[in-house]
Amino acid sequence: MNKEADKLWGGRFSESTDAFVEAFTASIQFDQRMWREDIQGSRAHARMLNKVAVLTDDELSQILSGLDEITSEIEKGELEWSIQLEDIHMNIEARLTALIGAAGKKLHTGRSRNDQVATDIRLYLRSEIDLINLELVRLQQGLLGLAEREADTIMPGFTHLQTAQPVTFGHHMLAWFEMLQRDRERLADCRKRVNILPLGAAALAGTTYPIDRHYTAELLGFDGVAENSLDAVSDRDFAIEFCAAGALIMTHLSRFSEELVLWASAQFNFIELPDRFCTGSSIMPQKKNPDVPELVRGKTGRVTGNLISMLTLMKAQCLAYNKDNQEDKEPLFDTVDTLRGSLRAYADMVPALQVKKESMYEAARRGYSTATDLADYLVRKGVAFRDSHEIVGKSVAYGIEQNKDLSEMSLQELQQFSDEISEDIFDVLTLEGSVAARNHIGGTAPAQVRAAVIRGQKRLQE
Amino acid sequence: MNKEADKLWGGRFSESTDAFVEAFTASIQFDQRMWREDIQGSRAHARMLNKVAVLTDDELSQILSGLDEITSEIEKGELEWSIQLEDIHMNIEARLTALIGAAGKKLHTGRSRNDQVATDIRLYLRSEIDLINLELVRLQQGLLGLAEREADTIMPGFTHLQTAQPVTFGHHMLAWFEMLQRDRERLADCRKRVNILPLGAAALAGTTYPIDRHYTAELLGFDGVAENSLDAVSDRDFAIEFCAAGALIMTHLSRFSEELVLWASAQFNFIELPDRFCTGSSIMPQKKNPDVPELVRGKTGRVTGNLISMLTLMKAQCLAYNKDNQEDKEPLFDTVDTLRGSLRAYADMVPALQVKKESMYEAARRGYSTATDLADYLVRKGVAFRDSHEIVGKSVAYGIEQNKDLSEMSLQELQQFSDEISEDIFDVLTLEGSVAARNHIGGTAPAQVRAAVIRGQKRLQE
Amino acid sequence: MNKEADKLWGGRFSESTDAFVEAFTASIQFDQRMWREDIQGSRAHARMLNKVAVLTDDELSQILSGLDEITSEIEKGELEWSIQLEDIHMNIEARLTALIGAAGKKLHTGRSRNDQVATDIRLYLRSEIDLINLELVRLQQGLLGLAEREADTIMPGFTHLQTAQPVTFGHHMLAWFEMLQRDRERLADCRKRVNILPLGAAALAGTTYPIDRHYTAELLGFDGVAENSLDAVSDRDFAIEFCAAGALIMTHLSRFSEELVLWASAQFNFIELPDRFCTGSSIMPQKKNPDVPELVRGKTGRVTGNLISMLTLMKAQCLAYNKDNQEDKEPLFDTVDTLRGSLRAYADMVPALQVKKESMYEAARRGYSTATDLADYLVRKGVAFRDSHEIVGKSVAYGIEQNKDLSEMSLQELQQFSDEISEDIFDVLTLEGSVAARNHIGGTAPAQVRAAVIRGQKRLQE
Amino acid sequence: MNKEADKLWGGRFSESTDAFVEAFTASIQFDQRMWREDIQGSRAHARMLNKVAVLTDDELSQILSGLDEITSEIEKGELEWSIQLEDIHMNIEARLTALIGAAGKKLHTGRSRNDQVATDIRLYLRSEIDLINLELVRLQQGLLGLAEREADTIMPGFTHLQTAQPVTFGHHMLAWFEMLQRDRERLADCRKRVNILPLGAAALAGTTYPIDRHYTAELLGFDGVAENSLDAVSDRDFAIEFCAAGALIMTHLSRFSEELVLWASAQFNFIELPDRFCTGSSIMPQKKNPDVPELVRGKTGRVTGNLISMLTLMKAQCLAYNKDNQEDKEPLFDTVDTLRGSLRAYADMVPALQVKKESMYEAARRGYSTATDLADYLVRKGVAFRDSHEIVGKSVAYGIEQNKDLSEMSLQELQQFSDEISEDIFDVLTLEGSVAARNHIGGTAPAQVRAAVIRGQKRLQE
Repeated sequence: MNKEADKLWGGRFSESTDAFVEAFTASIQFDQRMWREDIQGSRAHARMLNKVAVLTDDELSQILSGLDEITSEIEKGELEWSIQLEDIHMNIEARLTALIGAAGKKLHTGRSRNDQVATDIRLYLRSEIDLINLELVRLQQGLLGLAEREADTIMPGFTHLQTAQPVTFGHHMLAWFEMLQRDRERLADCRKRVNILPLGAAALAGTTYPIDRHYTAELLGFDGVAENSLDAVSDRDFAIEFCAAGALIMTHLSRFSEELVLWASAQFNFIELPDRFCTGSSIMPQKKNPDVPELVRGKTGRVTGNLISMLTLMKAQCLAYNKDNQEDKEPLFDTVDTLRGSLRAYADMVPALQVKKESMYEAARRGYSTATDLADYLVRKGVAFRDSHEIVGKSVAYGIEQNKDLSEMSLQELQQFSDEISEDIFDVLTLEGSVAARNHIGGTAPAQVRAAVIRGQKRLQE
Repeated sequence: MNKEADKLWGGRFSESTDAFVEAFTASIQFDQRMWREDIQGSRAHARMLNKVAVLTDDELSQILSGLDEITSEIEKGELEWSIQLEDIHMNIEARLTALIGAAGKKLHTGRSRNDQVATDIRLYLRSEIDLINLELVRLQQGLLGLAEREADTIMPGFTHLQTAQPVTFGHHMLAWFEMLQRDRERLADCRKRVNILPLGAAALAGTTYPIDRHYTAELLGFDGVAENSLDAVSDRDFAIEFCAAGALIMTHLSRFSEELVLWASAQFNFIELPDRFCTGSSIMPQKKNPDVPELVRGKTGRVTGNLISMLTLMKAQCLAYNKDNQEDKEPLFDTVDTLRGSLRAYADMVPALQVKKESMYEAARRGYSTATDLADYLVRKGVAFRDSHEIVGKSVAYGIEQNKDLSEMSLQELQQFSDEISEDIFDVLTLEGSVAARNHIGGTAPAQVRAAVIRGQKRLQE
Repeated sequence: MNKEADKLWGGRFSESTDAFVEAFTASIQFDQRMWREDIQGSRAHARMLNKVAVLTDDELSQILSGLDEITSEIEKGELEWSIQLEDIHMNIEARLTALIGAAGKKLHTGRSRNDQVATDIRLYLRSEIDLINLELVRLQQGLLGLAEREADTIMPGFTHLQTAQPVTFGHHMLAWFEMLQRDRERLADCRKRVNILPLGAAALAGTTYPIDRHYTAELLGFDGVAENSLDAVSDRDFAIEFCAAGALIMTHLSRFSEELVLWASAQFNFIELPDRFCTGSSIMPQKKNPDVPELVRGKTGRVTGNLISMLTLMKAQCLAYNKDNQEDKEPLFDTVDTLRGSLRAYADMVPALQVKKESMYEAARRGYSTATDLADYLVRKGVAFRDSHEIVGKSVAYGIEQNKDLSEMSLQELQQFSDEISEDIFDVLTLEGSVAARNHIGGTAPAQVRAAVIRGQKRLQE
Repeated sequence: MNKEADKLWGGRFSESTDAFVEAFTASIQFDQRMWREDIQGSRAHARMLNKVAVLTDDELSQILSGLDEITSEIEKGELEWSIQLEDIHMNIEARLTALIGAAGKKLHTGRSRNDQVATDIRLYLRSEIDLINLELVRLQQGLLGLAEREADTIMPGFTHLQTAQPVTFGHHMLAWFEMLQRDRERLADCRKRVNILPLGAAALAGTTYPIDRHYTAELLGFDGVAENSLDAVSDRDFAIEFCAAGALIMTHLSRFSEELVLWASAQFNFIELPDRFCTGSSIMPQKKNPDVPELVRGKTGRVTGNLISMLTLMKAQCLAYNKDNQEDKEPLFDTVDTLRGSLRAYADMVPALQVKKESMYEAARRGYSTATDLADYLVRKGVAFRDSHEIVGKSVAYGIEQNKDLSEMSLQELQQFSDEISEDIFDVLTLEGSVAARNHIGGTAPAQVRAAVIRGQKRLQE
């Protein structure tokens, strides 16, 4: 017997598929991950076919029972996936026909694998976006908690990795909160475009059966139906958009990671990571390596790579469906896994960060971090900004020469640079005074941090 | 005289910047493009400083006049950009101080180049998004017009570049309409995140001046203010998100281009491009090359490349601002230029496409494009879908052997594959019958195309 | 019992690794692929340690037997990989110690996982490069065979997908041969840089044991030793270079695929792909889809994506080893698998391509493909090239109007464009005359194709 | 007059090119950069045409004089580039014909813009590779000088940014030397593939003139001729390979930059960058920002982006030449500019780095950096490596608790972890002892650094 006989499309072929080619072109190895969505879509399709009288009630009922049986088989690990049956769709349909006979052969009426796979991916991605969103929220909550706890903790703020001005640690935590908030917005925007039903596009042109696409959409919780069948089967925008949003999430985590690694170094010594997020060295027993942040930083590459895979895949592809598109799944799945794993690790880790306040405070005290405050002070005394800038520049140059911070100079020393400086300057040059003075929305003042935490909690509930 | 004296930050430096280093690190060569936005931002900043009494009315008035004067100088091409002054901000500020003296030096109060440049880019990008949106709309309108004109025109629909089923040319045009519609949605979503005011973040921590950020936001038409100063100066998400949206737009145009090039080939011969979008060959005088589609297809690469530039740029960057970020501008500008040029070319070209109806019809007539219709016919007669599929497969194999399309076979010939086939089959096997039968939302039927055009026009007005 | 006790680096840790974190950071799931190389490297390391008297003969002999035993266990599928033991190195070492006791604990003397993994990857990649090279050669041989067989077959040569000049099909095959030849050169160049021993770098600084790196290199067939230990453990250039070479190979196959898909379309109808490299449609029984070329074209994306993953991974990474680098393996493995699969499929498929000569000939006959020959004819008669170009342009314009190819015009018709045209023009306007006249190295003349095939065979043997 | 009349290919066209389209499709704006190479190629082509008697001596002489005249005009800035004439080739040819008349029109005999532009790019890139190589050598020399000067300087060696083992600063410099050495090898390998003559491929199929391609190759210094005309006009591998090599160079510089930025921070305080490679802040007068390293780190993105542009460009492009390929130039030029600028800045900066020895020494002294030495000591005393690893782990845990480095513990304290420790342990625990003990090729010992410097100098001369 010709093994093609088992293939649903084998009618016109005279030569068997080569075994290597069969394995090379099959997708069941990876698309089996979407088995639940495939069954979910088939249920809805069957119910719609019944509603429009293409399937009888009896056929529908057989199909639904058959799909229940298959669900149970898969959950128990009893269904063996067959490479010969190529993909998840054919594997399930073949099993269904084996279980229930004739009715099973009718399930594919009015659809094609082209619109079926598009539906499966959208169902899959929609639910993954929701799970990723939950991890993002959990991580954001961790950041708000930390920000509140450390609203008064002072650390050096850096630009160019040079000490610039003192900031509060809580304020720094909220910078990451903002990045993740935008990430959630982007995912929500992407989800709108994911949540559209392609089913009904059939192979590319729609179908001659009297289908009711709005009903199927309703059953599956889709917000609408794809407006054009050619587009519906060939569109992978939603997956690319998701990968782009994912690349930004990972880019944010890479920046987060970079700072954690730096802060955990002996040189910075700003934080301690809990042991369970670190590993040791096989040769250097004293090491405690910040493995999780490093690994997450490294994983940025794979998501950016996945984005490029998808964009390259779609570049200059003719309409409508082409086999190329089978290659959309692995980068998408890998992006989902990477995001979920990385976010989970971070959401677990962040609340357990230990903050070394003295060390950060000491670092902020050095490095002329209140120089801007001196400049602002002079401006308030009537010196033009650019002139005051120059005065402070000279004071700092003197400080470096004398190895003295601004706050360590005497009034006399300071006055050699400007007559406008008087005793009240020393309030301005303290770290506490500096951060408290940046007291406007978005500023680093502890009061602003606390207010931002409250706003943040509300934004998480929206 | 030390040339550093001219530099606004030169106070503490003992050594001049090397001339090569100066040119290497300067950005005025490309950021001069944002001069209007820089002045626009400075105006609003000055008015806010006046509102909160940091600038007197008189100072404000001097500053505004000075900025007017500079605007006029730049428009006339009279202002010479100086590499020594590094960037657009310093070039304009230096000129302002030269023009109006002391008041000019006060303009920079309460801001930093870090938040200033972030504001400039956002203003710039916001207005470019609006222009790009207009070109997209124009192109979509062209597609709707073409779709309406060619709602009944039949062409072969392809999957795997093999003739699959007949579709209408109008329907195909609407596939592109849908892609561009999603592109506009993505830009609109991105615009929300662009339209946030960073000004007030100052260098990284906020400022000690009693600034009113909401007022500045209002003056500049921003929807809100950035919630965290560290994030505000280091965030380039909006630019990356824009480039990702741009990469999808170009990917769509690349698919569009691919099809136009194919269709304009002698082998397909589906369309004729107007001469003015083509060029000839220096060696082959008979050639008429579809230059515009080819070039646009090629330009896909640069936008995808720009996206990668930006993602690579931000990967693992510490907060807050780093000099690396100067590299955000050129890829952004290039993306804007590429999108505007490519969309303009397409919006001009699409309405002028000449459609070769006979040639397309003839192509659809060959290739067994109504085989699915035969299968559906059999299903309606009670044959299970998978069985009917096999029957049709055998008919096609016979047809290839006999070099006959399905519609060219006699009833007898057809009946050898199934008893269920009777005289009415010939209605089903016509191209007109086939497309008309796909008469549901998203389907290729002329009636559906016309309805979709009407919906499309409404969606463009939303 | 603390489970960390099992971890080789657990000495200083007070808290267990979280189970999720353990799985998240482990690499055994994917690096087990390198078990042979890990054992190969350990053997050589043990023999070197024995040579320099760090291991006794007895210890060496125990270690080698233990490694034999492990090899056999793995081959039989009896060794269970443990996530708790993190990676392939620790899994094997733990098993060795379990098998042979004290001697096993000495194997890691003078090395670290940092230089061990670098050695494993290089051994792995070296052997994969050799296998990929073999597939490339096999594919090139297929192309040479086809080129020879079809040295006289005429097809239209395209630029801008417009018929330009007739070429021979054999000549076209040799274009692909050339691309693959460069690919092999690139792999050979890359292999030189792969084939360098990092072992001996230990964690990052070298080791205090009196190791003999040249001896280890010799045992493992490396061409040299890495000159700097910091570089040796942190360098992943060779993997990136390999991925870049791989991206070019896939880019070539994507161009090859694009043409095969085009040529297999009804519109071009230049070739027929054997059934076993195609699949059918679940809804359109008449379809024969060129799956293998399409899928390979789609796979281009993943290799380009892998390249970006790796470049992103390494961007701005501090020396020396960081956990990020664990992320180098999956993109590398996937690149190897993709190349091997795609090349194998192509090497199998190419010799089985069926060429439709009449169809190609007919296509070349249309489209004014010998216009350049007319131009060259005029130049030989003394007309300046640019003037002759214009004459031909007008002839073609006339031909399009009259629907006549150049060779179909009468002498009189031709002469209206130039007096220099006489009876001998008709030799020039034949396809055979046109291709035969391009008779210089690199030209499309059948004689040149045959000569190039002979040179090609020699180049494959070099 | 129809402006198309000026276009060399305008013969068959009935409609003028739209002015916007003309500008959109022209390349003269950027390909004018290759004017020297275009003239160089034309000279060689003319001399070859003369050799094979297509041009008379007189015509050749006129052409060569005309090209001289044009060279002089361009050098003086007198030649105005015309967008209407599209590209550098037509601009120069039109000027030539204007200058010398009929002979000028003959220059294009036997070539096409397709092979002409491929030749220009290869000539251009070959000479740029040579210049880039010179900058690489200059930077490597700087590193060798620094390595020699600081061969004995001790710093902490990091893995995971945790102090691992002491290394010498000279040794660290040599890690970068190695990376750049591989970069030069890659460029040299790429250059071999650049240095092949495409001229003679004409449009795509070769030419009917009796050309002598080997002679042209010889005149232009090419190593060989392209073996296949279709491939010759469509191949851009060499440019992609160059961009890939460039991406690795920039990735190396990004790692270098990352470390310099880190080392220049107050927290590390390992080096001081000379003022002229830094800039200040407009708001924080105390800042000295490591601008050059930061900017170079940022520029990594653009080269990686350019690589992606090129790969995307070529993906799935049909043979032979398509207009898409015009897009190859800007990413290539930008890569060249970025590499030359970044390498020049680094080559200038490296010899001027100021090393803060005490600070690095002090950092190495902390952090248990000699823990491995203790482990190795125990192994030499007969303890199995894995057991000694555990002993050291406990000693370090004790040290952290007691806030004592290993070298600061008493013999008694150390002996509580192992009886094998005796008085001689203190030689092992010094930094000097530790680095000196890693005395094998590739190791960090000062003696090895000095030897590597000598070898390095030889390798630069090869």
